[in-house]
Amino acid sequence: MILERIGIIHPGAMGISIAASAQNTGYQVYWASAGRSRQTQERAAKFGLRDAITLAQLCETCQLIVCVCPPHAAEEVAQQVVVHGYKGLYLDANAVAPQRAMRIGAMLHEAGALFVDGGIIGGPAWKSGETWLYLSGPQAQVVAQCFAAGPLGTSVIGENIGKASALKMCYAAYTKGTTALLCAILAAAEELQVRQELQQQWTRDDPEFAQQTVQRVRSATAKAWRFVGEMDEIAATLQGAGLPGEFHAGAANIYRRMAHLKDAPTIPTLEEVLAALLQPRDV
Amino acid sequence: MILERIGIIHPGAMGISIAASAQNTGYQVYWASAGRSRQTQERAAKFGLRDAITLAQLCETCQLIVCVCPPHAAEEVAQQVVVHGYKGLYLDANAVAPQRAMRIGAMLHEAGALFVDGGIIGGPAWKSGETWLYLSGPQAQVVAQCFAAGPLGTSVIGENIGKASALKMCYAAYTKGTTALLCAILAAAEELQVRQELQQQWTRDDPEFAQQTVQRVRSATAKAWRFVGEMDEIAATLQGAGLPGEFHAGAANIYRRMAHLKDAPTIPTLEEVLAALLQPRDV
Repeated sequence: MILERIGIIHPGAMGISIAASAQNTGYQVYWASAGRSRQTQERAAKFGLRDAITLAQLCETCQLIVCVCPPHAAEEVAQQVVVHGYKGLYLDANAVAPQRAMRIGAMLHEAGALFVDGGIIGGPAWKSGETWLYLSGPQAQVVAQCFAAGPLGTSVIGENIGKASALKMCYAAYTKGTTALLCAILAAAEELQVRQELQQQWTRDDPEFAQQTVQRVRSATAKAWRFVGEMDEIAATLQGAGLPGEFHAGAANIYRRMAHLKDAPTIPTLEEVLAALLQPRDV
Repeated sequence: MILERIGIIHPGAMGISIAASAQNTGYQVYWASAGRSRQTQERAAKFGLRDAITLAQLCETCQLIVCVCPPHAAEEVAQQVVVHGYKGLYLDANAVAPQRAMRIGAMLHEAGALFVDGGIIGGPAWKSGETWLYLSGPQAQVVAQCFAAGPLGTSVIGENIGKASALKMCYAAYTKGTTALLCAILAAAEELQVRQELQQQWTRDDPEFAQQTVQRVRSATAKAWRFVGEMDEIAATLQGAGLPGEFHAGAANIYRRMAHLKDAPTIPTLEEVLAALLQPRDV
């Protein structure tokens, strides 16, 4: 198999940067425009992605399909690819529990395709040394070569499907878990009328910490809607390893309360976030 | 009422430092040796605490009683003081939920005593500017004056019983909550065979973080047995404020698995802590 054409599902803010690293390495990158937003269409056009129009065409055209989507959609996307009779190489680069990565891998394997497990750590990959695609599985090295020119960094960490996902889950368990915890604590302190005193004590410990917490809480509002599914995946990961899933059940609860803030016209103030956390909507 | 004599229940590592600040300020500090360990006896003798022998005598002798004990014992200690007919000023300086502080306060109030709510942030108070006793309640200022010479710092944050405890809970929710989370994550990474990769990624982000996590996990082993109750109190605090208690239910689970490590002859290695977390005993 000569790998020339790569399909990306979907070219969002992260996906388009992954596509760009593949283009830099000399590959033709395709996407499927059917049913996607105007914003995604403009993004794909801006970076010169080739349009296969439908997922069926994308599956026919490409020898590697890279899936970058919210974790709650990962399994469904893989199912659709199987439905279209795809037999090439499939990379799931989503924030899913290793059990789910293994399930997706088994499904593709059974359908005659090849599967590589992936996990992305960092933001959209526009600068060398800041974003890493971890890969595991027998074909991991083949996938890594598709991005060799960067700026996306790659790291093959073994032959076992699930290992790249496990690493992503453990990493995000701390970063996104502690942000959710800070949201919960600040809201509790607000409700119990000790927020100012808490922020003063934090400042006594570290002059920058209190202000950093405000930034972390506010900047989570745009992405909280898709962190809910990721927290569920992390809870499943910890439980699957024999450890308590409650930390991230709590974190999912917090991000669920913040999910509607993605539609805010400007970044909400801390006070607005705390109000949303203290008056949860029926969801 | 002239406040001359202060009783301390119990002069542990933290309590003895609180006693020392009261002595520095000119007060006579008593304790009750009956039933206490040889280690506590030696500590009390070293710092010149006066021995009231029994709790009954301590209640008769002192005009202020300061309670510093593990959170799970706080309510029982207050009950014993009520049983002995104590009518003076009582400071609960323990890591308890504001609801529990209010319950203890109501019990003492009903028995004719005066109650001040307290929360200690920092380690034993041997250096100025490092340990703070937060106080709330109508008599909070009277208590604060007992430690005016330091090195313990005091801060009166209001008239409402429960406020000092709420602040302590919110503060410890992050420090002890994130340490427990790190324990869970490192154990999961160990079980899923990605610990080395996780530590490498952490080091990419911040050259010191991975090593700091090892120190935090190892140094929690001596105190985990009493953090279990504190995590239960924090979970109750967050739930009482309308926020998820799960983060600290998970943290209590983690510290429960580490509780027996308090008896380790030397500080356990990271590998020993992770083994304990992954093979929980029946407790």
